[in-house]
Amino acid sequence: MNPRVEEISVSLIRQVAAKKRPTSIDLGMGEPSLRPTQRHLDAGAAYIAQHGLRYSPNAGEPRLREAIARHYNYPQMGEAANVCVTVGSQEAMYAIFKALFDPARDELLIVEPTFPSYVKMARLEGIGLQIVRTRDEDDFGFDVEAIVDALTDRTRAILLCSPCNPTGRAMTREQGLQLAAALAQRPGEPIWVIHDEIYREQVFIDDAVDFARIYPHTIVANSISKSNALTGLRLGWTIAPERFIEQAIKAHAYMTSCADAFAQAVAYSIFTTPDAIAEHRAWYAQRRSGVLQALDASGLRALPIDGSFYACVQLAPGTDSLDAAMRLIERDDVLTIPGIAFGPNFESWLRLSWVAPLDRFQEGLHRIAALQSR
Amino acid sequence: MNPRVEEISVSLIRQVAAKKRPTSIDLGMGEPSLRPTQRHLDAGAAYIAQHGLRYSPNAGEPRLREAIARHYNYPQMGEAANVCVTVGSQEAMYAIFKALFDPARDELLIVEPTFPSYVKMARLEGIGLQIVRTRDEDDFGFDVEAIVDALTDRTRAILLCSPCNPTGRAMTREQGLQLAAALAQRPGEPIWVIHDEIYREQVFIDDAVDFARIYPHTIVANSISKSNALTGLRLGWTIAPERFIEQAIKAHAYMTSCADAFAQAVAYSIFTTPDAIAEHRAWYAQRRSGVLQALDASGLRALPIDGSFYACVQLAPGTDSLDAAMRLIERDDVLTIPGIAFGPNFESWLRLSWVAPLDRFQEGLHRIAALQSR
Repeated sequence: MNPRVEEISVSLIRQVAAKKRPTSIDLGMGEPSLRPTQRHLDAGAAYIAQHGLRYSPNAGEPRLREAIARHYNYPQMGEAANVCVTVGSQEAMYAIFKALFDPARDELLIVEPTFPSYVKMARLEGIGLQIVRTRDEDDFGFDVEAIVDALTDRTRAILLCSPCNPTGRAMTREQGLQLAAALAQRPGEPIWVIHDEIYREQVFIDDAVDFARIYPHTIVANSISKSNALTGLRLGWTIAPERFIEQAIKAHAYMTSCADAFAQAVAYSIFTTPDAIAEHRAWYAQRRSGVLQALDASGLRALPIDGSFYACVQLAPGTDSLDAAMRLIERDDVLTIPGIAFGPNFESWLRLSWVAPLDRFQEGLHRIAALQSR
Repeated sequence: MNPRVEEISVSLIRQVAAKKRPTSIDLGMGEPSLRPTQRHLDAGAAYIAQHGLRYSPNAGEPRLREAIARHYNYPQMGEAANVCVTVGSQEAMYAIFKALFDPARDELLIVEPTFPSYVKMARLEGIGLQIVRTRDEDDFGFDVEAIVDALTDRTRAILLCSPCNPTGRAMTREQGLQLAAALAQRPGEPIWVIHDEIYREQVFIDDAVDFARIYPHTIVANSISKSNALTGLRLGWTIAPERFIEQAIKAHAYMTSCADAFAQAVAYSIFTTPDAIAEHRAWYAQRRSGVLQALDASGLRALPIDGSFYACVQLAPGTDSLDAAMRLIERDDVLTIPGIAFGPNFESWLRLSWVAPLDRFQEGLHRIAALQSR
């Protein structure tokens, strides 16, 4: 067997989530609780009733590639040739890793707390990691100086999950411009920025950066999973300069051939219906207001929610977050994700998703706060 | 960039296929021309209208895993835990390669002529290849003795595409038993057999082997792409001993998370409708009869069609197959796949798919035969 695969253990998130009962208050889930808009699903069904389900070109249906490229219209990346349609943003990220890094020399810089999947993918591919940690005293906001200081000759790319899973913090446009300027000044081969913008339609601040707008060596990964409540559709993409997309298409072609024809037709309906990609934005913005009030009322320290559908709350300093999450699910029937799953600097924090009904979220917060006082 | 990705060039198949015109007789395509059964698509649409599109467990919906396991009921592989649902058989094969091989020491034995994708995947993963070539004088039938003779201490697995793309030859049960006996006698870690049985529902001989029935260290890859005309649905699976499936699930989880919920519902409809997996068998068997007559009438030497929807015909010995395929598409408007795309021992042969209307296939054969006499 491949030792790199064998080494991967069951994730902490899954270990905790496995304890969920039907009665549990689920603040763990990483997917929307909204339903997808039936009209897009009907458009997909109509397409396949007419055309059957045939292979698409590896890179995706040309009309969908073009619709995605035009929608985002990132500088120098506004053409179909700049898009590769993938099996969700997970496969987009895997194809990006596969195509971009020469594991013999290239390393990836990630910012902790981090979505743990990036670390696992890098290990599967044998790609060295450089880790920069955001700080509690900054409310885990991005720290451009720390990123720039950590760059080495081996750094091939910086992975920017903004808004960040788990913290919900977003890089601002000003921070982005600072980082882009520092990167532009470096001699030698360019350092790429991989912007995972999966929570792009759940951004609640005015000045979050679209890195692709300000830096030419940007590779974007995204999907309609979170924006349109279509996690199970498995339809994502990467947008990048054409010379990179050409390589990513090859990795993608051998991993999965192409994305599902039905899913591509659903996505085409979304990208050709005005504002459909943002159709759930108002719901999230409104829900967030209630969440912020509930957090205030709870007495718990919480991070600002720049974006995403997560809230992070701090337990008493020194608390073992895995232990706390286990007690919460086993004794108090509240599923939360322990901060330690995202990096050692997020120990004593919990990640809570707020897609469940607001009264359930409030009740979950009460039980978390009560845990503190026991 | 990753040099292993950069090295991969555009395939010969695509180079030739890119010349196709609307008027072309297409004997190149590797997918059914039949339409999928609407009832299964409706079942998928009904499922997602009710349940939305949520993540499934990485390994697939439990009910689908169980339905697949029970349908094939391979010895010691008849439970849900023996199945990982994947994004088509392409991702199944990639996850198998990723999980099974330690590229530092393990090699894969393949039989040429071979589906070129296997070679590309092995190169992407840095897995060493051992190549056994079937012989023209055997009509490119499997040669168990040659396979056994080629095994070394580094051989971790044998990849068996049976029925074979491109040759259409299948390994017989008797040959399978010989190979299994030889493998069982070897000391040390077992050598695995990866059986790509993608053309399982297009088998036309009585004694083709299901390797998983006769050898415990078998890993199966398959999908509903060819059996049910659902190439664009991207729904496949691997079936194997549980200790291997556990590793394959991890590779699959990081490559794509899970297969599409719609596709899984369509597959569940197929596996719970009696004989639905074989619903197109009769059509292929009947079409093959016409194809065999047409091949006889053409005067061209053709290989027996044990299975698949391909016919292979020989050009004059010494003919450059890529050159011939280019002349055929450019001058005679017939799209064929040059044998050289599948290995050097298939030079001077052409692979023809026979899913196009029979009169078109016949006309294509006429033009190929005419090429010979010019």
